[in-house]
Amino acid sequence: MTPVRWRDGTLEILDQRRLPAEEMWLACTTWQEVAGAIRTLAVRGAPAIGIAAAYGMALAKGGERDDAAAGLRAARPTAVNLSWAVERALASPDPLREATAIAAEEAARCDAIAAAGASLIPSGARAMTICHTGALATGGAGTALGVLGEAHARGRLAEVVACETRPLLQGARLTMWECMRRGIPARLIVDGAAGQAMRRGEVDLVIAGADRIAANGDTANKVGTYGLAVLARHHGLPFYIAAPSSTVDRATGDGGAIPIEERDPDEVLRIGAPAGARASNPAFDVTPAELISAWVTERGVHRSAADLVR
Amino acid sequence: MTPVRWRDGTLEILDQRRLPAEEMWLACTTWQEVAGAIRTLAVRGAPAIGIAAAYGMALAKGGERDDAAAGLRAARPTAVNLSWAVERALASPDPLREATAIAAEEAARCDAIAAAGASLIPSGARAMTICHTGALATGGAGTALGVLGEAHARGRLAEVVACETRPLLQGARLTMWECMRRGIPARLIVDGAAGQAMRRGEVDLVIAGADRIAANGDTANKVGTYGLAVLARHHGLPFYIAAPSSTVDRATGDGGAIPIEERDPDEVLRIGAPAGARASNPAFDVTPAELISAWVTERGVHRSAADLVR
Repeated sequence: MTPVRWRDGTLEILDQRRLPAEEMWLACTTWQEVAGAIRTLAVRGAPAIGIAAAYGMALAKGGERDDAAAGLRAARPTAVNLSWAVERALASPDPLREATAIAAEEAARCDAIAAAGASLIPSGARAMTICHTGALATGGAGTALGVLGEAHARGRLAEVVACETRPLLQGARLTMWECMRRGIPARLIVDGAAGQAMRRGEVDLVIAGADRIAANGDTANKVGTYGLAVLARHHGLPFYIAAPSSTVDRATGDGGAIPIEERDPDEVLRIGAPAGARASNPAFDVTPAELISAWVTERGVHRSAADLVR
Repeated sequence: MTPVRWRDGTLEILDQRRLPAEEMWLACTTWQEVAGAIRTLAVRGAPAIGIAAAYGMALAKGGERDDAAAGLRAARPTAVNLSWAVERALASPDPLREATAIAAEEAARCDAIAAAGASLIPSGARAMTICHTGALATGGAGTALGVLGEAHARGRLAEVVACETRPLLQGARLTMWECMRRGIPARLIVDGAAGQAMRRGEVDLVIAGADRIAANGDTANKVGTYGLAVLARHHGLPFYIAAPSSTVDRATGDGGAIPIEERDPDEVLRIGAPAGARASNPAFDVTPAELISAWVTERGVHRSAADLVR
């Protein structure tokens, strides 16, 4: 389960839009194809798009490198890992080697996040999560789902409660698929059922990934995350964020300055709305730091934003 | 826009599962067919299923009436209007006349709800709603959507923000369709985007319908309603329930005693989850009275549960 693989000068990208129905690999030989795969969500997940973009830089010919950097960075605006990885590849004399290094580092970070985060999961816990934060999103063990996988391996996790995550159903399609493949007990709910699951006492904690964490700890993640954080607070449940430190953006002061990608309304409209209906489709939302119990990074568990950005 | 019509001994039911794509009428000549239409959500909305069930009683032959009453009541467990309407038809010497009377009364109640509720909508308001509470759900002007329609007619409503309402998308399919037909400006969002819309200041109030209101004011409605109520409270926004008094169940003390219908997990799973995945699919949730700013019935605006059940 890896989102991208490099073979003989080609970046192969597992097309996550087609999962779980079919496993199809896109062969990219230009940076533009990689940018297209990122824009259309063939590859998604903040760490994974950083890795893909770094390999995209390795596909850029000498004279194209500045254009490639700009084009890859612009493919999606919210996840800071994307520009972070592009900058590293751009600054390197050997972008391919840099991309390979970034992929290896992110995988190692996932392992450290999983180990640190598993200590937060009480025995017998039922953990709610949103979107997909596993191997396909990170190129490693995952962030939030990596923590839950490690807790499961330690015999502490009773169940993952996966929010389906409309409009693109990463929870239904990818989290459920990855949990089933890894033998982690998981149950799917519609996003609107999260509040009732908490009220009924079916959930012990919430853990999510992140696309960008501002210097004050405000955290952008998949739309719906903020609502879960408010609900968790209302029910007295801990709400955790798990992300590699590459997701922390010290240059962005607070969540209000994080650009929120507005995607094609058709993603919302196409499964039922009448022709001509209007929709808005923000892909992310921002959870203020005060609703976050702790951030888990490869450096450990951070109970305050000050400790996180230190 | 009417959910059911009686013609020459046949109850014709507009199949709402097929809307907005096509307008197909089911012709029911037995109470069992009516119960099936209610169970499968061909007709839905608490007042509308009460009306349909009363007509279903009119289709029952003399010796079947007790069986018909039990079968229609059991078609869906949460909305109290269903058993209320069935009891009335069962107690009547002329069930058809009783059904016609119930339909007329519910339509009149909708008009009174709309008039009373419109006073709650400030000028220029953007109102969030969930599921569908318009003409097709009530046989009249609607409950929550009736209020918004009246506010729009008075020039006070800037926009309806419709939550799509997974899994069956009554918001996307029916609220958007009805708003477009009535010329009410409406914008669709995924259910997970509700929190961010409030946080961004794009919403001034939330108004929803109800399937059953307990004696203490706790209110069962479409799953996701409770989450909106918690979010509204967190953002200091008013949260209103609009429903006819036939929805109030004085025999149920509080929300914990309201039966919550658990529907087929396939409704959640079928648009993306891997084969063999587990899901839960509660169709309703309960919002505690303390999160409700006011209930609007045909008798006016009730600021307390005591006033509501008086």
